[in-house]
Amino acid sequence: MSFLQRAATVRPEQCAIVHGSRRYTYREFWNRSRQLGAALWANGIGRGDCVAIMATNTPEMLEAHNGVPLIGAVLNSLNIRLDATTLAFILEHGEAKVLITDREFSPVIKQALAKIERSLLVIDIDDELGKGGELLGQSDYETFIASANADDAPNAIEDEWQSISLLYTSGTTGNPKGCVYHHRGAYLNAIGNMTTMGVTHQSRYLWTLPMFHCDGWTFTWGVTAAMGTHVCLRQVDPELIFQLIEREDVTHMCGAPIVLNMLANAPTEQHKRATKNVEIATGGAAPPSSVIESMEALGFNVTHLYGLTETYGPATACIPQDDWPQLELQQRSTRMARQGVHYLTLEGAAIFNSDTMERTPTDGQTIGELMIRGNTVMKGYLKNPDATNEAFSDGWFHTGDLGVQHPDGYIEIKDRAKDIIISGGENVSTLEVEEVLYRHPAVLEAAVVAKPDAKWGETPCAFVTLHKAGGATEQEIIDYCREHMARFKVPKHVVFGPLPKTSTGKIQKFALRDVAKGS
Amino acid sequence: MSFLQRAATVRPEQCAIVHGSRRYTYREFWNRSRQLGAALWANGIGRGDCVAIMATNTPEMLEAHNGVPLIGAVLNSLNIRLDATTLAFILEHGEAKVLITDREFSPVIKQALAKIERSLLVIDIDDELGKGGELLGQSDYETFIASANADDAPNAIEDEWQSISLLYTSGTTGNPKGCVYHHRGAYLNAIGNMTTMGVTHQSRYLWTLPMFHCDGWTFTWGVTAAMGTHVCLRQVDPELIFQLIEREDVTHMCGAPIVLNMLANAPTEQHKRATKNVEIATGGAAPPSSVIESMEALGFNVTHLYGLTETYGPATACIPQDDWPQLELQQRSTRMARQGVHYLTLEGAAIFNSDTMERTPTDGQTIGELMIRGNTVMKGYLKNPDATNEAFSDGWFHTGDLGVQHPDGYIEIKDRAKDIIISGGENVSTLEVEEVLYRHPAVLEAAVVAKPDAKWGETPCAFVTLHKAGGATEQEIIDYCREHMARFKVPKHVVFGPLPKTSTGKIQKFALRDVAKGS
Repeated sequence: MSFLQRAATVRPEQCAIVHGSRRYTYREFWNRSRQLGAALWANGIGRGDCVAIMATNTPEMLEAHNGVPLIGAVLNSLNIRLDATTLAFILEHGEAKVLITDREFSPVIKQALAKIERSLLVIDIDDELGKGGELLGQSDYETFIASANADDAPNAIEDEWQSISLLYTSGTTGNPKGCVYHHRGAYLNAIGNMTTMGVTHQSRYLWTLPMFHCDGWTFTWGVTAAMGTHVCLRQVDPELIFQLIEREDVTHMCGAPIVLNMLANAPTEQHKRATKNVEIATGGAAPPSSVIESMEALGFNVTHLYGLTETYGPATACIPQDDWPQLELQQRSTRMARQGVHYLTLEGAAIFNSDTMERTPTDGQTIGELMIRGNTVMKGYLKNPDATNEAFSDGWFHTGDLGVQHPDGYIEIKDRAKDIIISGGENVSTLEVEEVLYRHPAVLEAAVVAKPDAKWGETPCAFVTLHKAGGATEQEIIDYCREHMARFKVPKHVVFGPLPKTSTGKIQKFALRDVAKGS
Repeated sequence: MSFLQRAATVRPEQCAIVHGSRRYTYREFWNRSRQLGAALWANGIGRGDCVAIMATNTPEMLEAHNGVPLIGAVLNSLNIRLDATTLAFILEHGEAKVLITDREFSPVIKQALAKIERSLLVIDIDDELGKGGELLGQSDYETFIASANADDAPNAIEDEWQSISLLYTSGTTGNPKGCVYHHRGAYLNAIGNMTTMGVTHQSRYLWTLPMFHCDGWTFTWGVTAAMGTHVCLRQVDPELIFQLIEREDVTHMCGAPIVLNMLANAPTEQHKRATKNVEIATGGAAPPSSVIESMEALGFNVTHLYGLTETYGPATACIPQDDWPQLELQQRSTRMARQGVHYLTLEGAAIFNSDTMERTPTDGQTIGELMIRGNTVMKGYLKNPDATNEAFSDGWFHTGDLGVQHPDGYIEIKDRAKDIIISGGENVSTLEVEEVLYRHPAVLEAAVVAKPDAKWGETPCAFVTLHKAGGATEQEIIDYCREHMARFKVPKHVVFGPLPKTSTGKIQKFALRDVAKGS
């Protein structure tokens, strides 16, 4: 990739990657990436071929993000939390010719490979920081790349619309869909991240976000574009994260609100290590105000980004206005929960009435569907023209998220189209109810879904995990909600217990709906 | 333009433009630009039509950079130092339908219009900071835009390759050539400037660089992309510049080395006003070390950019390495004089043997031609397919600049192809000789050209302006050169006096060559 080549020219001796005791300069990062490309090329992999990878946030993953696209091939990062059946489906559907896999995942990968008739070239990542596991492949990664000469890697990128990666959405039902990214979108969104988050060559970016999520929201390329330092991390472990923030002078990181929640709720003796301002971007869901408050107290600056796998991760950012720091936390976090405005590198994001395709009034009230367009929207879903056409009808990408646009133009998402509750003819935003639940001091996690109701059609039903079992009663929670929201929005039932999650950490509302229906 | 629209959404109340006592917010800037677009549209101007502008760095010029492209029209910024004949040629060749002109230039514009048979819609800018002059047009600017409603401006940008502006190269001989820019290139180079110079919404950019130079090197759009503040300036007046730096908290500015020279040589009592670090980018020629030294002493950080009108202004930047601050000034300024590496938003810049189209070795020695390619290279020369094809042969844009590439990949220009001196079979870089001349304490400006010589073919001839008449003799200058360069590079003759310059401030070497030939 041209960003890495440029970084290797401009700052060849700068530390590009840190992983445990391993350190690579930009010169080494570029050489190793080209060696990977050359080794794949020597094995007959070239333009348009799919190379799958099952890995955590390690140097090999970063190298694959450069060496694979360089030779015109397409990188298919697999979600490490998937089951063997789904993995086998993806390997078949994506037609991967190569699988690079970390030995830690050998049990599930072995099962997945057993379900596939084709034979793949399998390369094992043998990371000393991993937890071991079987070696399944024809070669280990280091031997594989050592077999090739960096200079033999051709640059097979001929067209900016060429595919660079393939990423499957987690899909709460049915088979996952494969989003195809192009070089142009990856390039622009990487620059968009760099400018939005202020990443420079002095930045040190800690990989708390999985790189298999939208190619690490394209920060895999964005940090390299800025010539900053990638600090790798195999898993989200608050103690290790706080240690690395201190030891590696971390300046930037990203994560879902749940990661922020973990950090905020880590034992206090771990917190002490975070002594200076760290920029943290969050997305996937609006960060609850309690989480923002805790993170700020720990010295983090929280930025709320919004995006989808279909939009290379971040597409909008909640850019703070100059008067926000003076607001009280409650008011401020309400503003920060908004999805904000489109990236500099995106053409547009707006709320439409999806029936008429007219813009909704910017009144903060009228709910419509969030639609997005620009260069940082995927090419389409692999081998799924119907879904692609549906998503792109009327010249905009339909996100399926429902929201409002405020008078200042800032977007605020109220719900997923399929999640919104209609109670007595009134729309109830489950996010709004959840925001209140999160503010209750006893609540750790909360999710609200519709429960069929003879009288109202639907009523809100809350599922709650408490910090401590028995920390609050159903009636206490309901009373708390009554104090803080309109009557028709108050959950009629509260169910306590752990919340089921998808492999990407999203709460499985469809499963909760089934429970609510039966309860 | 989408950058301005976004800025008006995200930071509507932020100060966008300062000009004397005038202040416009981003909301106003966007409204006024759209009013201009709507007024032009109402007058039948639309996609592909050319709108010429003869103006200094005023708010109207910034508005034209947005309102004109918005309706799909092409902005043709005229060099305010041109004569009536050349202006008439450009207006005819570019087929301008509208001319927006500052009344200060009414004498030359009146003459130019008299040479044109077509009738143009002429709009006068009546700026109270200007020096007066005749009103030539059908309307003044404020009345013209007040006649239109901002919401009536259509967005007529349908294709990123659509033309956005037309800029004529000064051309040392013959008729000027019209470089056509497209929206895509302008967009990317604006982001390139923003990231290279670190412009953010907190930046305050002083317009010491004419906006008619490559659309202000695309900082016209770049500062807006970053949502910073434009501080306007009608002319390069060191006293006023130092005042504005202090009064308007200027953080960034740009200018040719001659502007830096003027600032460095301004009376000391003016200097005192510049009290903090200001980023200043320079280009058009390598900054002499004496100038870098003086500017740093005044608290400026100098960045050397390189580019051409054909490349939207800056295309490469001399990005400092971490160890440079420790170098002695002489060594450091030698490094800083290099053109460096290509912008993040450019695909490539390299030195080629223009006969074989092979890359020259990166040895810092082998001279070849600098070639550039990427999205930030113009579409071509207007109505001049021969010149366009010649410039773009072999898939690279041929800059006509001769240089070397150092082992670290940094490019250093040695001369214009037509300027290099061949003496006794040895190449003499006139820039190298000039760099030494500039270091002589008595020398204010210097230029070196070839003088025909019966024995050596050519020998270097120096033209020098001294700080004070009589400050040095020809022999003293020659002796100084002997101490600091190889014998064959030493000028055989030194001519004292003012140097002839083009309308863009470049020294006219062809005129000096004529003098050298005759002397």
